[in-house]
Amino acid sequence: MNLQAFRAELADLEIDDNPTSIRAKSRDFFWYSPVLKARMDHLTADLVISPRDEAEVIRILRAAFAHDAPVTVRGSGTGNYGQAMPMRGGVVLHMKNMTAVKSVHPGRVIVEPGCLIKDLDAATRKHSGQELRMHPSTWATATIGGFIGGGSGGVGSVTWGVLRDLGNILRLRVVTMEAEPRVLEFTGEELHRVSHAYGTNGIITEVEMPLAPAYDWVEIFVTLPDWDQAVALAGGLADQDGILKKLISVYEAPTAKDYFQRVAPHVDAADHLLGLMIAPQSMDGFLTFLARFPSAKVIFRSDAHDWPREPGAVFEYGWNHTTLRALKVDPSITYLQVRYAPGDYAAQIAAIRAQFPGELIQHLEAMRENGRSMFAGLTLVKFTSEERLDAIIKAHEAAGAMIFNPHRYTLEEGGRQSVDSVQLDFKRQADPKGLLNPGKMITWDRPDWDYARMYDYADMRRA
Amino acid sequence: MNLQAFRAELADLEIDDNPTSIRAKSRDFFWYSPVLKARMDHLTADLVISPRDEAEVIRILRAAFAHDAPVTVRGSGTGNYGQAMPMRGGVVLHMKNMTAVKSVHPGRVIVEPGCLIKDLDAATRKHSGQELRMHPSTWATATIGGFIGGGSGGVGSVTWGVLRDLGNILRLRVVTMEAEPRVLEFTGEELHRVSHAYGTNGIITEVEMPLAPAYDWVEIFVTLPDWDQAVALAGGLADQDGILKKLISVYEAPTAKDYFQRVAPHVDAADHLLGLMIAPQSMDGFLTFLARFPSAKVIFRSDAHDWPREPGAVFEYGWNHTTLRALKVDPSITYLQVRYAPGDYAAQIAAIRAQFPGELIQHLEAMRENGRSMFAGLTLVKFTSEERLDAIIKAHEAAGAMIFNPHRYTLEEGGRQSVDSVQLDFKRQADPKGLLNPGKMITWDRPDWDYARMYDYADMRRA
Repeated sequence: MNLQAFRAELADLEIDDNPTSIRAKSRDFFWYSPVLKARMDHLTADLVISPRDEAEVIRILRAAFAHDAPVTVRGSGTGNYGQAMPMRGGVVLHMKNMTAVKSVHPGRVIVEPGCLIKDLDAATRKHSGQELRMHPSTWATATIGGFIGGGSGGVGSVTWGVLRDLGNILRLRVVTMEAEPRVLEFTGEELHRVSHAYGTNGIITEVEMPLAPAYDWVEIFVTLPDWDQAVALAGGLADQDGILKKLISVYEAPTAKDYFQRVAPHVDAADHLLGLMIAPQSMDGFLTFLARFPSAKVIFRSDAHDWPREPGAVFEYGWNHTTLRALKVDPSITYLQVRYAPGDYAAQIAAIRAQFPGELIQHLEAMRENGRSMFAGLTLVKFTSEERLDAIIKAHEAAGAMIFNPHRYTLEEGGRQSVDSVQLDFKRQADPKGLLNPGKMITWDRPDWDYARMYDYADMRRA
Repeated sequence: MNLQAFRAELADLEIDDNPTSIRAKSRDFFWYSPVLKARMDHLTADLVISPRDEAEVIRILRAAFAHDAPVTVRGSGTGNYGQAMPMRGGVVLHMKNMTAVKSVHPGRVIVEPGCLIKDLDAATRKHSGQELRMHPSTWATATIGGFIGGGSGGVGSVTWGVLRDLGNILRLRVVTMEAEPRVLEFTGEELHRVSHAYGTNGIITEVEMPLAPAYDWVEIFVTLPDWDQAVALAGGLADQDGILKKLISVYEAPTAKDYFQRVAPHVDAADHLLGLMIAPQSMDGFLTFLARFPSAKVIFRSDAHDWPREPGAVFEYGWNHTTLRALKVDPSITYLQVRYAPGDYAAQIAAIRAQFPGELIQHLEAMRENGRSMFAGLTLVKFTSEERLDAIIKAHEAAGAMIFNPHRYTLEEGGRQSVDSVQLDFKRQADPKGLLNPGKMITWDRPDWDYARMYDYADMRRA
């Protein structure tokens, strides 16, 4: 890589070469994982460029191709898999300047990738009472492009499924990493060439997303003394087609007491907690449903409560914010990302829970998958060793639960542990030199890789 | 019953006693059923009163109670079970003057029961781009009160489930039939005292319903040569959480060719047909999904077509309009209403279809039930005799499909053939004399009834 020549060509762009700042912009939330922390903490890029528009993106990629500079794109760096970290150094492409909400229509919005999800929702709500169908718990800080490039689902997935489901991304505009970069528009089956590809095979410069009505969601905490009842309530509520909801989180005791500081005064250590977002017009239906669980108790609702200290957004207790809150209290905690299957989830969850008392604390998020309700588990794990973590993962798999391993930095290991030929084939066209976010696609580097052990990217910049 | 005294008390109200008009207002679409036609065709009330507001409803019920006049409430009379027909004569309470849209809010509307659904949707669309979650295929002529009192679901149920599901009716205001009528407000579990009760236990005077966004739905016809593929496409589409849809109808060949006049020029007799309503922002996802069925062919989409004669609203081919269109061509046709279960529907549908070639023509409507996709069947039946119809019904039940028998005029026989104690208990309080829509609740008249044969209401006015 010839960084000096690269830089000279782009002197009029916004370039950051302050080492402290570069280091900050080379990191994401990889440190949730002690495994990733041990391997990636030292990583830093050589410089950060923040393009102001697509034309600048094209110039940057053209120059990077010419001078063999690796380019790792990032939004706000709120991912947890190290997906925005520059394994070989080089350039971090920071999208913070490309934030324009270009147009809002009934049911859809066109926006630049660097727009914060919070700002995007504010713009569409103001325009016409609309909002994104789904967002990560990092709504306030994450970008829409980062969510598409490195996320999968979140708040809203209980109704709409995940980003990968047809209809949840409408169109992506992408610049390739070639001698002369091309600008491509993807819809339909082609979207998955670049969605959730960690920026390994193209740089997203424009996004078209579907919108849903922006109601004044009622945010609710409910306690239950019995875990199986908590799961049954959450699953039953997810199945209520007439009750519009945006979030159903389930936290095993003592999560609420030990890790949710502002909730703690209102619960006992033995209380399991549900965090919910319900459309205001569905509150009567919701309370009617809730009354079928006599031991369930509403301890907070955002539209009527007497808590002296507001808890903040209920979704900021869910998804990966749960791990963050637990980590702040107990640094030994990490997590796993689990898929519990439709129809079988109750048995799978119970089987896992019985095997690791005290070591795992269950945290579930209700989702839809292919028309059915199921749960993602973002299980809190009291970490002891990598070997023990691997044993816990194997136990999940033996119980029929699928693991998306957040202690791996590659697309394949963090996903379904198989080749994504759509993404790989497109990388061959769009990034022939393999300069985009290197080290994140095993099948590019080592098509014969054996998933039994952790991938160690040979060209990773060493500490 | 002392009708003269009743009438004298209400002389300032809008009373219709023209015999031709009374007869017209004493009928609904019961004649879809040859069984009901043979038994109910002669039925007529003695007079029709059309209250202008709730105060007049109260006056009418007070006078009816005092003078023992039966009262059968009706909207537009678009039901198919004879549910709005006055079995013992007396008064038809026509709600045509109570049509006010009282207020529209984000996600909900408050309206009088006589408002046409078409007018209600127009008002909420104009106010804030909203519409009802679901409506019958008689959208253009049916009233919202009639839908709640005598309907169950329809266009929109593929996303929202049915009226009975929690959250799909928010509040009902009801006047009782007592010496001094009471005005009651029902929410939650209490809603089912009076929803789908055919007006047997109270008169609805105000309705609060949830709303959904009113998109410019794209209406679509698709043909397929293979029936199993048509069912698989419909079921698979229903399971696509990210594709927003309002209607998925499936019509077995030769329905489209023989009964859908404006569609016929565009199909072959062997073509199975799908009728769809898809949100515009979901069209890319929908077409992507459709491409997975190579034999499926879009023959019409409302936003881009070259049909010289517009087919009209695609939903007016579905639900019970299918039967109506078939009946107009072949008067020997009637229908059955079937529930095919989630998970098992494909096998149940195939089993029934194999048993009655030429005699039954399948018509399916995708719905949601307790969080899962399934199908309602509104099967076209070439009617020969009541005995044969009963045999066909028994074959459905043997295959695991449930029948809601549209050849019966009682709540119980047309429903789950069991006592609805919620409705019966409330009738004891709200209509102690049994004057509201008499003859429609078997358990009121004959608690020991045996469902093996058709109920014959002893006090039915005879021809």
